[in-house]
Amino acid sequence: MSLPPPVSASLLLTDLYQLTMLQAYLDQGQAELAVFEFFVRRLPEQRQFLMAAGLEQVLDFLEGACLSEAELAWLAGTGRFHGRFIESLRLLRFEGAVDALPEGTVFFADESVLRVVAPLPQAQLVETRIINLLQYQTLVASKAARARLVAPVLQLVDFGLRRAHGAEAGLLSARASYLAGFDGTATVLAGLHWGIPLFGTMAHAFIEVHARETEAFEHFARSHPQAVTLLIDTYDTEAAARQLVPLAHRLAAEGITVQAVRIDSGDLADHARRVRAILDVGGLGGIRIFASGNLDEYRLAELLGQGAPIDGFGVGTRMNTSADLPFLDCAYKLQEYAGLARRKRSEGKATWPGRKQVYRHYDAAGVMAGDVITLLDADGDGDGDGDADAPPAGQPLLQPVMRAGRRLAASPGLTEVRQHARAELARLPPALRGLTPAPTPYPVRVSAALAALRAEVDARLDRQGALDAAVATAHLL
Amino acid sequence: MSLPPPVSASLLLTDLYQLTMLQAYLDQGQAELAVFEFFVRRLPEQRQFLMAAGLEQVLDFLEGACLSEAELAWLAGTGRFHGRFIESLRLLRFEGAVDALPEGTVFFADESVLRVVAPLPQAQLVETRIINLLQYQTLVASKAARARLVAPVLQLVDFGLRRAHGAEAGLLSARASYLAGFDGTATVLAGLHWGIPLFGTMAHAFIEVHARETEAFEHFARSHPQAVTLLIDTYDTEAAARQLVPLAHRLAAEGITVQAVRIDSGDLADHARRVRAILDVGGLGGIRIFASGNLDEYRLAELLGQGAPIDGFGVGTRMNTSADLPFLDCAYKLQEYAGLARRKRSEGKATWPGRKQVYRHYDAAGVMAGDVITLLDADGDGDGDGDADAPPAGQPLLQPVMRAGRRLAASPGLTEVRQHARAELARLPPALRGLTPAPTPYPVRVSAALAALRAEVDARLDRQGALDAAVATAHLL
Repeated sequence: MSLPPPVSASLLLTDLYQLTMLQAYLDQGQAELAVFEFFVRRLPEQRQFLMAAGLEQVLDFLEGACLSEAELAWLAGTGRFHGRFIESLRLLRFEGAVDALPEGTVFFADESVLRVVAPLPQAQLVETRIINLLQYQTLVASKAARARLVAPVLQLVDFGLRRAHGAEAGLLSARASYLAGFDGTATVLAGLHWGIPLFGTMAHAFIEVHARETEAFEHFARSHPQAVTLLIDTYDTEAAARQLVPLAHRLAAEGITVQAVRIDSGDLADHARRVRAILDVGGLGGIRIFASGNLDEYRLAELLGQGAPIDGFGVGTRMNTSADLPFLDCAYKLQEYAGLARRKRSEGKATWPGRKQVYRHYDAAGVMAGDVITLLDADGDGDGDGDADAPPAGQPLLQPVMRAGRRLAASPGLTEVRQHARAELARLPPALRGLTPAPTPYPVRVSAALAALRAEVDARLDRQGALDAAVATAHLL
Repeated sequence: MSLPPPVSASLLLTDLYQLTMLQAYLDQGQAELAVFEFFVRRLPEQRQFLMAAGLEQVLDFLEGACLSEAELAWLAGTGRFHGRFIESLRLLRFEGAVDALPEGTVFFADESVLRVVAPLPQAQLVETRIINLLQYQTLVASKAARARLVAPVLQLVDFGLRRAHGAEAGLLSARASYLAGFDGTATVLAGLHWGIPLFGTMAHAFIEVHARETEAFEHFARSHPQAVTLLIDTYDTEAAARQLVPLAHRLAAEGITVQAVRIDSGDLADHARRVRAILDVGGLGGIRIFASGNLDEYRLAELLGQGAPIDGFGVGTRMNTSADLPFLDCAYKLQEYAGLARRKRSEGKATWPGRKQVYRHYDAAGVMAGDVITLLDADGDGDGDGDADAPPAGQPLLQPVMRAGRRLAASPGLTEVRQHARAELARLPPALRGLTPAPTPYPVRVSAALAALRAEVDARLDRQGALDAAVATAHLL
């Protein structure tokens, strides 16, 4: 029994310019080691922290990276590339090294989330898909984590496949929200691929095809006696709750327990209160109330602030599209080539050069107290802070995960990733746990050695720029 | 040579509740004809019109719909379903009828975009994926069409794969933006699957791996003499332009033409003006200027309003995530079952019952003048306006595309769809062509027959509700 992979594996999930650059690299023999790092340029005001996710799919992609004969033939047929280049693509595999934040790790702006060290063509070609995979799951995990912080003990279920941006987004958002602390998803294929717990019972259409609502409820309960959640807002929510009372008792007498009702429209807090009262008065205090419809962490906070008696939430569209922040200002940038640190200086998009590590400090209570972005072991004393005389500097966050194109160890399962994410959220400073910006941002410092390297790269670029300008002027004279 | 399909085909791209409902339908023998329609509940304030897209992928999905043995075995192993239901899934194929707006058609709120008529289980199971496919491409096509209206003759290229929400979103946004009028995409796999023209030359990393920027330019030009667009903002945009002048003349002497420069950061209008002046003074008036970086239709309008001398734009993240409107309030709802019209009455989510057609009227100049949502041939006079005495009522928009689970004809190619989309945009009322809401909305009227049907369904539901309430009260006494 074989199943198609949950995410697409083609190396042609890339921008054309990666291929045109690769041909130019080949023509010039440029294949020395390149270092690229993925990071987020700015922490958006809608988020107080980000949660890394998507590494697992990146490693799958890198391990499987190759072009099929059909793809090579098509590329050759475009007439854009010469035969020697097509041959080089036929042999291309990813044989590099990857270090990364474990999935579920909290991170901030400018911190390296993933580092690739590989011969230039290999490291270049995979840029597009690495960003594509890391950004989306990080977006969803970061938003789902906020919902989990707002509702630490209530049931949270991903309902968002239908309005996610395509199938892969639907699947990956089920995964990313689960690793960030959700209890499960409605997306069946995500249950199949990753063992994520599945939730779901009925839609409004189910009620509507029956002549009477109570008949629909009863039919459903008899078909699924082990999992009876009834949708009660198709016509009149409170009327449905009242009609449920005698039915639920009748079913209970036969050993069928109505476990929950779902409300999907209107003033959810108000309906939940009225329904709770009807059920309680009717002797059905054990039936839980589940709510859905346009929910996200803001709406959850509002409902819980109103004391709505809701036991669980279906969270969909707004989380799966990260609607208040549909993209991150993220990048995968060259940091070093052929042993020399590199840096882009474009306005508003300048980068920190070199191979970097992030060290995290904790206070006595184990709460995150501040990060330092350093050069990787620049000072050789192993603490990575770049200052030879500084004290050891906390916990290094990037971990080696791939060497020579192969995983160093089997990836942690989703259960383990969830535990790590939960531990990360428990270590968050209180000021970062809410939905509004903290009065002072989380402290992230750049080490002296990294600042010095940036100055050194700038001096080199300035010298070269002056020379180039002189040459250009000479040509014009 | 075989290629994996561009989009995922699994029938398990669905919500668990579709399967639990299907088992209940099977248990009750509920398999009569059901009619579902996809529509958008409200036209969002960020859009003046929507453009239908995604039908092609929906038809592919429906024609291929079946569950693999591996999927069936997994489902059986979940313990949620009985054997007779798993057997029914093994035999399940989509054998229904589909009518829909042709891709590229402009539409408005409440108008049916796609109608499925099929036995209830078939029509129900495909709900999730139909919404998933139609919403996303419609979102992107609608946004791309706005960019095309803002810049009718400039080059527009999709640059957004990296920050799209997964691979499928990246591919489908290349397709949706192209059908709405873009000139092409950077996404290689979209070129392979759909023949969409590809664009792209180099990233900043290409510049940075060279010791000197001009050396990078020259290397690239020699590797790709037929398509030379040079990225000039890595360090200092104007300095790069000045250095390009002698190089471009030197290359021209060898027969290599620098066609364009790309600017990706800073004040694009200001840089474009300065670069234009440098190139013009340098005798390089033929080199075009291409801009990218955080662009969308609003930013395009601003740049063109400033008279920026830009010849083409790479539009990425904000279009591919539809960042100002990341989802539509859309639904696929039951309209009829077993010959009876059905309607949901949930607060804020009530629907129009019955099988519907949309008729569009044009003024003498061929400009869209108003739509009528009618019952399908309700009055039998063939004009579909539901009023037996009304004059013939314009052009019917929904077209038959599938019967008995098979396409009625080969789908139009993307070129034809693009022509239709262009014609649709040409017929838009002037007030809908801008980026801000028109003073009066486009007129969409509901026919008298449809309003009467809604009243009839409501009366039936009210009678049933009163009866159910009486029964519930009797039980409580």
